[in-house]
Amino acid sequence: MARWEPGAGERLQQAALDLFAEQGYEQTTVNQIAHRAGLTTRTFFRYFADKREVLFAGEEALPPMATQAITEPPAALSPLQVIEQALRSFSGTIFQGRSISYVRKRRAVIAADPSLRERELRKLADLRDAIGEGFRLRGLDDVAALLAAETALTVFTVSVRRWLGEGDSAAREPGEVDPTELEAFAKDTLEQLRALQ
Amino acid sequence: MARWEPGAGERLQQAALDLFAEQGYEQTTVNQIAHRAGLTTRTFFRYFADKREVLFAGEEALPPMATQAITEPPAALSPLQVIEQALRSFSGTIFQGRSISYVRKRRAVIAADPSLRERELRKLADLRDAIGEGFRLRGLDDVAALLAAETALTVFTVSVRRWLGEGDSAAREPGEVDPTELEAFAKDTLEQLRALQ
Repeated sequence: MARWEPGAGERLQQAALDLFAEQGYEQTTVNQIAHRAGLTTRTFFRYFADKREVLFAGEEALPPMATQAITEPPAALSPLQVIEQALRSFSGTIFQGRSISYVRKRRAVIAADPSLRERELRKLADLRDAIGEGFRLRGLDDVAALLAAETALTVFTVSVRRWLGEGDSAAREPGEVDPTELEAFAKDTLEQLRALQ
Repeated sequence: MARWEPGAGERLQQAALDLFAEQGYEQTTVNQIAHRAGLTTRTFFRYFADKREVLFAGEEALPPMATQAITEPPAALSPLQVIEQALRSFSGTIFQGRSISYVRKRRAVIAADPSLRERELRKLADLRDAIGEGFRLRGLDDVAALLAAETALTVFTVSVRRWLGEGDSAAREPGEVDPTELEAFAKDTLEQLRALQ
């Protein structure tokens, strides 16, 4: 087996996700994941620290991206307008190259396991802190920055749920993700949020 | 020992909280809690299903209270105005009779243990669903109701954090909770949220 396999990371992620969904996260071993992907456990550990991190790989890049997305828009914009611009730049990159069925299956696997929900929660808390930091850099005080960060996460998570059709009887077809679709949901969700006033 | 001890539930809760804070949640047994409270384990199990539920007793009453608090205000009010009224009625009852030091210690114990954070998360999800149900009963569609519920939880959690002085270098003195103080923070937090527009 070659030392470097093209697409090995993606193959391992898909294999892990399929096994977690089929037989449960706890019951799945790194050996099984590597075997399903046609790779060695040595290769697995070149890509991921452990079986949990297969589901969260690359996410350490998100908090700094979020801080930057919040600080970049022009100073004259209101916090909600900043959220709108930041979500547009985020929507274009966060699920890039992932099929809707991959994103959905990943969410179902996480929802089914307490330790994975914990990990997801920690990720969201890091993201909230990073967004809050961006708003503080824009000059908001601590409370306003925290509220803006919570609001950004609310709009984002509600938009993703709508985009995935969760809780929707008319399930969407699997297929490549269209980022402009998530962007449209984010825009509409933000409009509905404004209407709560 | 008498079969019925006046204040036994509260004594068990305080003993459990103190032990969880001193030696850790995992390391504490029901025997130790009963002993610290000067009661038997039999008495413990008359009040609580297990040691985890000591921290969450009575919380099954919150979701129906939340639905009612959202449906009661006049039909003419906007969702944010409804949230303001609902938070006022909630603030007056939710921490009634608890000292600030009890509430703070409880939050620190929960933050330190993954299984307790999971439990707290489930409670918040139930509360969000109950608030959303209230808004649907007011005639909001699913997305607006979900956004209103997330917004209510954001305002509530941020207000509680401010009220407890969390992340505040000027720590507040322990003492009986003044519900009107939480109400004042809720009102101010909601005003700051409106200013994000």
